Amino acid sequence: MAITYYWEDLKPGSVRELGSITVNAEEIKEFASQFDPQPFHVDELAGRRSMFGNLCASGWHTCALAMKLTVENFLNQAASMGSPGIENLRWLKPVYPDDTLSLRHSIVESRPLRKRRDTGLVRSVWELFNQNGEKVMQMEGYGMFRRRSPATDEEIASLETPKA
Amino acid sequence: MAITYYWEDLKPGSVRELGSITVNAEEIKEFASQFDPQPFHVDELAGRRSMFGNLCASGWHTCALAMKLTVENFLNQAASMGSPGIENLRWLKPVYPDDTLSLRHSIVESRPLRKRRDTGLVRSVWELFNQNGEKVMQMEGYGMFRRRSPATDEEIASLETPKA
Repeated sequence: MAITYYWEDLKPGSVRELGSITVNAEEIKEFASQFDPQPFHVDELAGRRSMFGNLCASGWHTCALAMKLTVENFLNQAASMGSPGIENLRWLKPVYPDDTLSLRHSIVESRPLRKRRDTGLVRSVWELFNQNGEKVMQMEGYGMFRRRSPATDEEIASLETPKA
Repeated sequence: MAITYYWEDLKPGSVRELGSITVNAEEIKEFASQFDPQPFHVDELAGRRSMFGNLCASGWHTCALAMKLTVENFLNQAASMGSPGIENLRWLKPVYPDDTLSLRHSIVESRPLRKRRDTGLVRSVWELFNQNGEKVMQMEGYGMFRRRSPATDEEIASLETPKA
């Protein structure tokens, strides 16, 4: 697939709507039976009797669905060099069978990497909403992307300046 | 399953080894084709040509495998009330086909909840190691657990004290 987005194209303040996906009860139970077999993720009755009031998706399934949207609608068109990690992951509301989840990425930070001049770092807030507009999950993801042109000495020097 | 662990049983400083699991190439490709279809997660040749040098698991697959060990070897014997979220998730090394991953939980914080006296919060560091002893992933997970007995007025009052 052609690359559309390099580091320079990913500006702080930019917002991307990355599509939506519906998850059903079978998918919730299949993921959970493999990876998160807590009763309220694998059994409808246990879900109804739980604090969640219904079968609901593993939080890791919710993350994986957000990743699917991210890859299909953004990363596979970007010069992505992987992610070192995630901050502030919050599961805010349960995800129930037949919920339709929509993902938004907002870029909040962008900076060169001192030790890899061909690569830059981007920090994005990921927000996942259900069909009622309720936010079900949020996190901040770090991503590394190849640059169109390597960092200049001036850019690197500006990184050395201690923050006030 | 019988409940062994309530909030009072989960002491800061305690460390639990939560077993190990081996992941193979088919499982890596199956997870990634569903949730993270970046070339180096779904195709051996693309993996060998990538910065990772081989097919490697989606970071979310790695998280899901850690969750499987957590549920099977701990949470399903605990009075778990779910998790509000995760901090400082770091993917430190790639996970390759046939890697055997071992999980360790270390409890680093425990506190009552002001608004839910029957429940307490625990913060644990999760560390996942491969068969060479290299740490491939780390995160801090928050978990809520039912208490054996509700928080006393004294416990709640002590929470009100501002920290120095």
